[in-house]
Amino acid sequence: MQTLRVERKIGRQSVLLEKDVMLLSSATVAGPKESLGPLSADFDRSYKDNIIKEKSFEKAECHMLEEACYLALGKARLSPEDIDFFIAGDLLNQIVTATFCARKLAIPYLGIYGACSTLSEGLSLGAMLVEGGFAKHILVGTSSHNCSAERQFRYPTEYGYQKPGYSQWTATGAGAVVLGTNGQGPRVESITVGKIVDAGVKDPFALGVAMAAAAADTIYNHFLDLERDPTYYNIILTGDLGGIGKKLNEDILAGKGYDIQPNYTDCGVLLYYPHQKVDAGASGCAASALVFLGHFYRKMMAKELRKALLVATGALHSPTTVLQQESIPCIAHAVSLEI
Amino acid sequence: MQTLRVERKIGRQSVLLEKDVMLLSSATVAGPKESLGPLSADFDRSYKDNIIKEKSFEKAECHMLEEACYLALGKARLSPEDIDFFIAGDLLNQIVTATFCARKLAIPYLGIYGACSTLSEGLSLGAMLVEGGFAKHILVGTSSHNCSAERQFRYPTEYGYQKPGYSQWTATGAGAVVLGTNGQGPRVESITVGKIVDAGVKDPFALGVAMAAAAADTIYNHFLDLERDPTYYNIILTGDLGGIGKKLNEDILAGKGYDIQPNYTDCGVLLYYPHQKVDAGASGCAASALVFLGHFYRKMMAKELRKALLVATGALHSPTTVLQQESIPCIAHAVSLEI
Repeated sequence: MQTLRVERKIGRQSVLLEKDVMLLSSATVAGPKESLGPLSADFDRSYKDNIIKEKSFEKAECHMLEEACYLALGKARLSPEDIDFFIAGDLLNQIVTATFCARKLAIPYLGIYGACSTLSEGLSLGAMLVEGGFAKHILVGTSSHNCSAERQFRYPTEYGYQKPGYSQWTATGAGAVVLGTNGQGPRVESITVGKIVDAGVKDPFALGVAMAAAAADTIYNHFLDLERDPTYYNIILTGDLGGIGKKLNEDILAGKGYDIQPNYTDCGVLLYYPHQKVDAGASGCAASALVFLGHFYRKMMAKELRKALLVATGALHSPTTVLQQESIPCIAHAVSLEI
Repeated sequence: MQTLRVERKIGRQSVLLEKDVMLLSSATVAGPKESLGPLSADFDRSYKDNIIKEKSFEKAECHMLEEACYLALGKARLSPEDIDFFIAGDLLNQIVTATFCARKLAIPYLGIYGACSTLSEGLSLGAMLVEGGFAKHILVGTSSHNCSAERQFRYPTEYGYQKPGYSQWTATGAGAVVLGTNGQGPRVESITVGKIVDAGVKDPFALGVAMAAAAADTIYNHFLDLERDPTYYNIILTGDLGGIGKKLNEDILAGKGYDIQPNYTDCGVLLYYPHQKVDAGASGCAASALVFLGHFYRKMMAKELRKALLVATGALHSPTTVLQQESIPCIAHAVSLEI
C-alpha cells in the first residue's frame, strides 16, 4: 500500500503526475520520402517504396504500425502478453490501421481518434492509466500513410492533382512507445488536454493555419495551469503545423505575452528538406511520431534535452463536413516530458 | 491525503474500482422510429422526424448529441465549466458528431472510436480517470443516426436498397452521462477492456454474428478475471448483437460452461417492436445508449436492478476494408454497474 495524492488535476485542463510513468521504449518505421529527409538516421526501419509488398496502401500502413509496435516491445524486452492496454489511432476512417494492428497484437484495445494529435492523446491517456494503477505497461501507437490519407481525404495520388503552396504533405510512417514505471526513459510529468478550437478556416488544405489556434490555446493553458513560461522547456514541439502554422502559433502566443520562438520548433517543419517539395511541411499522425519518437526521444535519452513539451495537433474535419461548408475544428494536447 | 490501493488491475483484462465513481445523471434523445418502440417512455426527448430542422442528417445527429449532453449536465446541476473532460465518439468518419459537439461544449476533449462499443469504452476510460483522481466530473456521450450511417457505410437510404433479413437497423439517437463521485447513481464497480476478436465474417450486413464472438470473449474474460458467474448479475446486457447475434453469444458462452440465458438480453433486441421491420434488431452507438442510459439506468435508480453488466459491442471495419476482402474485427468492453 503506497500513498499517492488522490487529486491530480491542476488548473482547468491539466493533470500533474507523481509516479515515474516513463516512455520505456520508442520505435519508428519510415516511408520512402521520410527516409530521404534530414532525420533519416533516427528511424529504426525505413522503406524505399510506399507499398512494401502489400496489396494496398492501407495494408502497407498497417504493416508499418505493426512493425513499430513489435520493435517498441522488443526494445522494452516485453511481449504483447506483458502489455495491459493498447491505445492507438490513425487517420483512416474507423481507425482501421490501429484496429487491424490490435487484432494481430491481441492486447486489450482502446481505440482513439484525434487525427494528427493521436500521439499526444494516446500518451496522455496511457500515462494517466499507468499513473492511476490501472496498467503496468501500455503500448501507444499511431501511423499515417501519404497515399491512403490522400485518397481518403482528397484524391488518389495517382491523379497527380495540384495542391496550393500552403498545403502540407501527409507523412508515411508509424511510431510506437511503451509506457511503464520500471525502467529508463523520459517521464511524463504533466499533461494538458486540449479543447476544440475552431478558427473558422474552411479550406481543407490550410490545416496548419487551422491548427495553429488550437496549438496556441493548449500551450497558453498549459503555461497558465502549471504556472510556467516557455523558458521552462528546452524544447517546445508542435505536431504538424508546418512553416505557416508555426509562424502563426508564435504570433498568437506572442500576442498573449509568451515568446516561444527561442526554443520552439514543429515536427512538420523538421521532417523533410526544403528541396523535397512538401510545400508548407509535413502533416499526418506520423509527422510527430517520426520526429518526436525517432529524433527527440534519442536526444532525451542522450540527456541532450532534459525538458520537452510535445504538442501534437489535429484537424478533426471530415470530407463530408467540408462539403457541408463546416469550418475545421482543431485540437492539440500537450505532454510535458522530463529526464 | 487519502490512501488508495495503487494497483487496480485484476486478471488479464480487468480493473476493479474502489472509489464510488457513479453515473450521476443520464440523458437520452431518440429519433422517430425509436420513439415508437417499446421503450419510448424512457427517453428524455423524442423527435418525430430524422432531420429535426437541420440542413443535413449529420447536423441532426450532432443536434441530438448536444441536446443529450446538455440534458445530462442539467440533471446533474452542472455546467460545461464543471466538467474536466468530455469523452465521446460516434460512427461517422473522423467522429465528426462528437467533435462538433465538443466544439460547442468547449470542454477538454478526448475523442474515441469504438464503433457501437463507444458507450462502454467511454464509460471505462471516464471511470478510470475519475477513479485515478484526474477528473472530478467527466461527460461521456455517443450517438448514431440511421441516415448518416447508412449512406456512409452502405447507400443513402433514399435509394431504397434491400438488405438481407439478418441485417440490423442503425438506431437514431444520442445518450450522455455524467461521471463523478459526489451524488447518487449506479457506481462503476469493475471494467473489462476487450480485445479485438475476428470471427472471419466478411459480410458487412452480418454484424451481429461478427460481434457475438467478441461479446462472448469479453464476458468470458470478465467472469474469469473477477471470479464470477452469470448469477452475480441481475442483468447482462450486450450492445447491439440483435436476435441472431444474441443467440450465438449465448451458445458460445454455453460451450464455455456459462449459462447466461436466464438473466441476459441485448439492447438491439429491446429497442424496437418486431412489427417495426428492423430485421435482426437495432445496431449503432445509440442502441446501447438509448436502451441502457434510457431504460435500464431508470430501473437501477429505482433499485429494481442492483447489478448490471453492460457489454456494448462494436464492429470496427470500414467500407474500404470490406472492399479489400478483409474480415470484420470486433470488440466489446464490459462495465459492471452496481447500486
